[in-house]
Amino acid sequence: MKKHNFSAGPSILAKEVIENTANAVRDLNGIGLSVMELSHRGKDFQAVMDETVALFRELLDIPGNYHVLFLGGGASLQFCMLPFNLLVTKAAYLETGTWAKKAIKEAKGFGQVEVVASSADKNFNYIPRGFSIPDDADYFHITTNNTIFGTGIFEDYDSPVPVVADMSSDIFSRPLDVSKYGIIYGGAQKNLGPAGVTFVIIREELLGKTERYIPTMLNYQTHIDNGSMFNTPPCLPIYTCMETLRWLKKLGGVKVMQEMNQEKASMLYDEIDRNLLFRGTAVNDSRSVMNICFVMRPEYQDLEKEFLDFTVSRGMVGLKGHRSVGGFRASTYNAMPKESVQALIDAMQEFEKKHAK
Amino acid sequence: MKKHNFSAGPSILAKEVIENTANAVRDLNGIGLSVMELSHRGKDFQAVMDETVALFRELLDIPGNYHVLFLGGGASLQFCMLPFNLLVTKAAYLETGTWAKKAIKEAKGFGQVEVVASSADKNFNYIPRGFSIPDDADYFHITTNNTIFGTGIFEDYDSPVPVVADMSSDIFSRPLDVSKYGIIYGGAQKNLGPAGVTFVIIREELLGKTERYIPTMLNYQTHIDNGSMFNTPPCLPIYTCMETLRWLKKLGGVKVMQEMNQEKASMLYDEIDRNLLFRGTAVNDSRSVMNICFVMRPEYQDLEKEFLDFTVSRGMVGLKGHRSVGGFRASTYNAMPKESVQALIDAMQEFEKKHAK
Repeated sequence: MKKHNFSAGPSILAKEVIENTANAVRDLNGIGLSVMELSHRGKDFQAVMDETVALFRELLDIPGNYHVLFLGGGASLQFCMLPFNLLVTKAAYLETGTWAKKAIKEAKGFGQVEVVASSADKNFNYIPRGFSIPDDADYFHITTNNTIFGTGIFEDYDSPVPVVADMSSDIFSRPLDVSKYGIIYGGAQKNLGPAGVTFVIIREELLGKTERYIPTMLNYQTHIDNGSMFNTPPCLPIYTCMETLRWLKKLGGVKVMQEMNQEKASMLYDEIDRNLLFRGTAVNDSRSVMNICFVMRPEYQDLEKEFLDFTVSRGMVGLKGHRSVGGFRASTYNAMPKESVQALIDAMQEFEKKHAK
Repeated sequence: MKKHNFSAGPSILAKEVIENTANAVRDLNGIGLSVMELSHRGKDFQAVMDETVALFRELLDIPGNYHVLFLGGGASLQFCMLPFNLLVTKAAYLETGTWAKKAIKEAKGFGQVEVVASSADKNFNYIPRGFSIPDDADYFHITTNNTIFGTGIFEDYDSPVPVVADMSSDIFSRPLDVSKYGIIYGGAQKNLGPAGVTFVIIREELLGKTERYIPTMLNYQTHIDNGSMFNTPPCLPIYTCMETLRWLKKLGGVKVMQEMNQEKASMLYDEIDRNLLFRGTAVNDSRSVMNICFVMRPEYQDLEKEFLDFTVSRGMVGLKGHRSVGGFRASTYNAMPKESVQALIDAMQEFEKKHAK
């Protein structure tokens, strides 16, 4: 049975990305060696690293004064690397969910943190508006897509201080004005590749302002100076990222991806809004196009498990919502085909026919 | 042409490990999903994590009061995590090469460091003996195999303080008395798997002694408390580690591996000592069984490039020595077949016949 993979992350990757990675694991470009067995300093892997960086630059239209880094440790490690490198006296954070809270917690270990706005009052079901960013902050941190609560930020904020954005779950989902950010970072395991590599797009001028001791591996300057090769990078995960970016470029880039994502998300949100059994959890103007969260309407609450089992019986994977929200979460990342979204809609309609009073 | 992969790391992996990883990249256990696309919190990946930990415990005979962790960031990140977590007033280090020096540099950012002995005086071509370990140190750090200089430590030291060992390049090459260590750690990309995951075997009692603020991701306790799943672990690299350990167990475990490694190393060292063109760089009693470093004898110095080209023409990869030593380095990790070592010996003998005066 064909699987429809709605997992929140690690998540679906394009078929040809999987196929090409499997082939490179066996033998990279016919050189007689696995991509896992190569010296990272040899020409074969250097070509992988160089192409991955070049595709990042091309597809996101990254200005020349930014570096693109690939690090280990996950986006969670960035939560402390950011204040380690950037927080001199005060940092500003927008609190839009679990990941923002974790980022805030780490920053508090290094200095003063001002939370400019929070949607905690409504279980993070919206993106705050109308807040002001303090111009004496060293940076302003946002989480552009909130995987758990299904909300998203779709504008590139104007800010008096450098914007630092965790784009773990929506990078490459839309065109960006990178020049409006100081740092964009994220784990690869949603729109980009497998778990194990973290990208960091960074404007070098941000660095060198703190006097604190920064361990070598936690210092962005180390990785800038060494082209992400100060130590052995996560080679195989980086290879898969390159394959995803090749695939994305072939499809037409981030503008095309944005249209495809909006189409998929609209299809599903329309069905959620129409269907008598379900309701969405995020406020309309904050709805994520990557993670679509919905629950049973109160009068059908006791059908939750039955609907989940029904989707599983139809080959759907990963639809159970996060415990912080409950219900269901359909992650419709870049690689998710429209057919899988349609399969979910069909299941919702069939379930409605059977159960709506 | 068959390739003989002598790379120092990332390095050769067993054929069946590569094949099984390629298959799991396509479809893990026939579940219809790639190992790259699975939620790390689902039962399919949890089984991978559990088996990898269990095989570590079984194959290294790890006592019950130790945890086995899989982290991102590389062994280089451990160089600062160790003092962050363990250094209260003073740490003792044995300086046996480049990696030890890097570890020492990071520790100095956190407190007093006593280098108990160093082989820097002879370009790290030997392992110091007869040093004493200060009993007021918080820990004593060693690098058990020095990849660059081709030296190794083959005993489990008796120490008045916890021994912390970087075993990046010789883990699983011999049986260990784990109880003599406080922490054993290393990058996977030599004897274990692809780059992108770091193992940490840790005795929990070592923790909680420092008052300093430790960022969440840098605190070993975080990863112990969450079974290496505080954040998304490097799933695919961990999968390959599991396949390597399955392969290692099938071959008979670390005792058998030790015999095979000693046989391969003896074959090559014997040829280096016999051949008129070459000489080994490491002192006899300190010779690594993983990285075998040798150079042309002075009178044949100008043949260095020609010999390297000759090995390349015979399908040998990665034999160029590190710039710190020059000449050649044959890395003969667990997965290296005896046939590849014999192919190198044949090349050395043929080259000798042609060039020895």
